[in-house]
Amino acid sequence: MTTSALPPAAYGDLARRFERLGRLGGVAAILDWDSQTMMPPGGAEARAEETAALALVRHELLTDPRIAGLLDRAEGGEAGMLAPWQRANLAAMRRQHTHANAVEPRLVGALERARARGAHAWRRAREDDDFARFAPLQVEVLDLTREMARAKAEALGCTPYDALLDAFEPGGKAAEIDAVFAALEDFLPEFLGRVLDRQRREPPPLPLEGPFPVAAQAALGRRLMAIIGFDFAHGRLDISAHPFCGGTPDDVRITTRYAEDDFTKALMGVLHETGHALYERGLPAAWRGQPVGEARGMSLHESQSLLLEMQACRGRDFLVFAAPLMREAFGRDGPAWHPDNLYRLHTRVAPGLIRVDADEVTYPAHVLLRYRLERALIAGDLAVADLPGAWRDGLDALLGIAPGDDRDGCLQDIHWAEGLFGYFPTYTLGAMTAAQLFAAATDADADIGAGIGRGDFAPLLAWLRANVHGHGAALSPREILIRATGGPLDPERYKTHLRTRYFP
Amino acid sequence: MTTSALPPAAYGDLARRFERLGRLGGVAAILDWDSQTMMPPGGAEARAEETAALALVRHELLTDPRIAGLLDRAEGGEAGMLAPWQRANLAAMRRQHTHANAVEPRLVGALERARARGAHAWRRAREDDDFARFAPLQVEVLDLTREMARAKAEALGCTPYDALLDAFEPGGKAAEIDAVFAALEDFLPEFLGRVLDRQRREPPPLPLEGPFPVAAQAALGRRLMAIIGFDFAHGRLDISAHPFCGGTPDDVRITTRYAEDDFTKALMGVLHETGHALYERGLPAAWRGQPVGEARGMSLHESQSLLLEMQACRGRDFLVFAAPLMREAFGRDGPAWHPDNLYRLHTRVAPGLIRVDADEVTYPAHVLLRYRLERALIAGDLAVADLPGAWRDGLDALLGIAPGDDRDGCLQDIHWAEGLFGYFPTYTLGAMTAAQLFAAATDADADIGAGIGRGDFAPLLAWLRANVHGHGAALSPREILIRATGGPLDPERYKTHLRTRYFP
Repeated sequence: MTTSALPPAAYGDLARRFERLGRLGGVAAILDWDSQTMMPPGGAEARAEETAALALVRHELLTDPRIAGLLDRAEGGEAGMLAPWQRANLAAMRRQHTHANAVEPRLVGALERARARGAHAWRRAREDDDFARFAPLQVEVLDLTREMARAKAEALGCTPYDALLDAFEPGGKAAEIDAVFAALEDFLPEFLGRVLDRQRREPPPLPLEGPFPVAAQAALGRRLMAIIGFDFAHGRLDISAHPFCGGTPDDVRITTRYAEDDFTKALMGVLHETGHALYERGLPAAWRGQPVGEARGMSLHESQSLLLEMQACRGRDFLVFAAPLMREAFGRDGPAWHPDNLYRLHTRVAPGLIRVDADEVTYPAHVLLRYRLERALIAGDLAVADLPGAWRDGLDALLGIAPGDDRDGCLQDIHWAEGLFGYFPTYTLGAMTAAQLFAAATDADADIGAGIGRGDFAPLLAWLRANVHGHGAALSPREILIRATGGPLDPERYKTHLRTRYFP
Repeated sequence: MTTSALPPAAYGDLARRFERLGRLGGVAAILDWDSQTMMPPGGAEARAEETAALALVRHELLTDPRIAGLLDRAEGGEAGMLAPWQRANLAAMRRQHTHANAVEPRLVGALERARARGAHAWRRAREDDDFARFAPLQVEVLDLTREMARAKAEALGCTPYDALLDAFEPGGKAAEIDAVFAALEDFLPEFLGRVLDRQRREPPPLPLEGPFPVAAQAALGRRLMAIIGFDFAHGRLDISAHPFCGGTPDDVRITTRYAEDDFTKALMGVLHETGHALYERGLPAAWRGQPVGEARGMSLHESQSLLLEMQACRGRDFLVFAAPLMREAFGRDGPAWHPDNLYRLHTRVAPGLIRVDADEVTYPAHVLLRYRLERALIAGDLAVADLPGAWRDGLDALLGIAPGDDRDGCLQDIHWAEGLFGYFPTYTLGAMTAAQLFAAATDADADIGAGIGRGDFAPLLAWLRANVHGHGAALSPREILIRATGGPLDPERYKTHLRTRYFP
């Protein structure tokens, strides 16, 4: 018997440690869901302490001095004994370890507490449109985030902003994003002008007259979720100020927010989060609890929500299927509820103030704005106090509109309050990825498009399980795109999608 | 400067460690609440892993080899430098440490997983009245609990059952409980016979005719909770199969279950859990996160729920106040809704199958049954397979009735499924403590009784905060009773309460 025949002891030890970390990550996810959906306001201070205590435990487990040696041994002598998915798991462990060890426990705890307080203060500030009261907490979160970014940049050998980006998009680089975004910025203003011009020449779509009771909206949302394949034995739909997909692959928790005058916002939001949920639920069960069993990054995650919402459910085929269900849900009828009119409503383009309500033509401008502002905030070139003004000026330059208050301006998103810097660009990377994947899917199997038209999402889901979800974190987004679509991310494919949809 | 002038370093280190443990306990409490109220059924398996991972972390922190030395140093050279509350804190730390170190990590993890699975299986078994399917999980939970009890008995120098009891009632002894319960058993059968005899001679109270919509019941419950002093900025009311009070002192989460044909069960359940909640919320904020800042044990906890439900809210004064609110909540009126009739309904005595629905005269019989059965289960004198039969025989001997199925028999409580052996006797100890405290409170301040009659609970709450809640775990139930009522727990006081209420 040679040494190479020994069981991979270091890898096995690491797998047990990361399984535990994964389970504690699940605890943190449920706690976060609770904070945003169920927790009474007076619980926020204590919750911040609880969240910090849990984060510190996870940090200590991940920075246990024995892990460095185990990683070295597993990557060295044991590598040849590992299956490809185990080697991918090891790489994901190494990345988590590098991120964690770059940051002192003191900073981890301080940041967790500041983020919990920041998120809570954001909710109140948004309600009251009171940026000034919120600003000191945002300063605290930003300062601690910059400190963390500098420490991680040193460990990863990259810029502070790329170090933040890497937490959401492993291996992502601002320089590459700049190139992709530049291609969009070259294309979109002129394209937007043409779309608006065409819309002006046509009669406007007929409005859907409210009110739409919240209970009926929720019932319709749940009905469509079930049709699409959301498993309510393994998930929930609730309400939160900022819609999200949380929980764990076996207990996926999505949220939305309802407005009685327009059901389409909440409904499309629900379908968007359902796309996230299907990705989580479709992650390989055999790798549950391991880093390789997790989602590969936020651009891929967002591609799954936007594939469902923007590519599938705002498409004409789906709206033909959904129109009678919508009429039934609200007891309405008439020409406004005809699929053609619904399709025009759901693909209506209009520059607006709110990112989450934006159409797919103007959405990239919202991301560009945030991407620029957060890079300036992290670089120290923009002060928190100057954010409201910079926001107004930036949106005006990109879309020719500006918010009258901060609620619809720089207070609209929770991300920065929670310290999520480096996250926003993944939305537009996700939109482009979604278009590229959906085109490949419908090309590969004609029944995918036809199925959507009759409310049968099984063919689409099977393709996504095989080509995206089932890979977990074993392949990079680039590798997934090459295998599934024949090439890496290509802005031309997004342009093709937009041209096909708006100028068929 | 002498050594005695040094700061109590060991105590300070312990306080930081136990603060962290306390916060992680808060995380576990929210997770448990979620499991019972919000979690979809398919999440149970993963939740069991999450709960086990969190329990193991807490166990490892509590069994850190450095804690033993820190406790020795704090109890030795530092004791003279500590305030009385800090010495009580130290004693509570020592007790937790002894409990934790008696049990191997393997057993802690196995028990946590078995309990989570057991609780989940219990919910299904109860719905389907299927004891046989549940029995293997109950066997697993019981076997692991007995293993834990033997280990703790050795560490604490007591019997295995007392070792289990000590987890819920620090310092509690079965021998003392036997004496108190014997006094009740001597008194109650004859007393019950006299009450039933008197009831038979009187015309029965008029029934309250349903249905009572769940939404109206919940609104009435919340209205009375607020009147009594439940702070909804620091708590919630939700629905669960088995009502409980969970969460943390800053975020207290109580639950109930509704039946449309009888609103009084859910309402009295809500008031019961509100009593628990007020205790949690009234724990000293200055000691938050420390063992001394926690509740002192389950008999005292139960005394607070029963004081509110049984002593205050089933009393005539409260029902005079509440009658118009009840009429308004359901849009009803007539003689059945007169306070006299409501009082007769709320103090009606009737042997029944369900513990949580039992009146205060027959309730002790339910506890006696469970106390005997669980002692036999722990001693190995009763097999899980024989539990349904032993339950039927035991209840028949005590109350002259027997359940026709296990749903209303040995499957009615979640306790044993969750491994809560040694818990049941605290209910009746709590009922007796409640009567003794309430008599002392109303004697001490005449405005307490008068306040309840006008819906003003502030005088009662002030007395409870000063005499019970505010002590946290710094005093034993015995010390609290002696200070507040002039003597230790005395079965005569409970008898006096029953005689006064049923034969005024």
